[in-house]
Amino acid sequence: MARWLEEIQWNADGLVPAIAQDAASGDVLMLAWMNRESLALTLEQGEAHYWSRSRGRLWKKGEQSGHVQRIAEIRLDCDADALLLKVDQRGGIACHTGRRCCFYRVLRDGNWVSVDPVLADPSTIYPQD
Amino acid sequence: MARWLEEIQWNADGLVPAIAQDAASGDVLMLAWMNRESLALTLEQGEAHYWSRSRGRLWKKGEQSGHVQRIAEIRLDCDADALLLKVDQRGGIACHTGRRCCFYRVLRDGNWVSVDPVLADPSTIYPQD
Repeated sequence: MARWLEEIQWNADGLVPAIAQDAASGDVLMLAWMNRESLALTLEQGEAHYWSRSRGRLWKKGEQSGHVQRIAEIRLDCDADALLLKVDQRGGIACHTGRRCCFYRVLRDGNWVSVDPVLADPSTIYPQD
Repeated sequence: MARWLEEIQWNADGLVPAIAQDAASGDVLMLAWMNRESLALTLEQGEAHYWSRSRGRLWKKGEQSGHVQRIAEIRLDCDADALLLKVDQRGGIACHTGRRCCFYRVLRDGNWVSVDPVLADPSTIYPQD
């Protein structure tokens, strides 16, 4: 195993949280999880791969939608237990709801209010779903 | 318990990851963890509170350093299991190493390379440590 991979403080499940940030706009697109294999593949292919905890499998971002994330930079935090990926988000849509980013709900007066527009109908993004 | 707090998918330890982003520059400052109490306090006081997993206690960001994070906005992601805080970072230093942000290491040729400058000596930030 490469040293740079072992310097990461993987959690008990062998995962770390990874923040994807749009390299151009600075928008925080999403937070997902990575294991060693997904991070190694991300570096090797230059496109973000994650570990889906709900599906229990490796997952290439955009594998169905085409909304892949080209990697501009991979950063590690001071405690070595979180990653920051600066990416070029193809299609301008990171969220499975068809929105630009996953953090589209804002807390206002005790309610989570959706404030960002749906840019594409999810049924057109994921035709096989 | 308030409904907006219960809509969050807390993990088995009662925590969610929270990304702190500089509201003005868009820089991703850090990733930390919150429990219900820390998030409720964050909203109530308008300053970020986290749960320190290593110390096992509630932790107000900047309690020692004065580098508090004033809250501009609190966002929740599509799966309701990650938070994004847009903050005003007092002192311009979020990291305990004296750097602007915690993600100061970049992966280059198989090495994590520190690329961001230390803005203040940690011993002057945390005189009691």
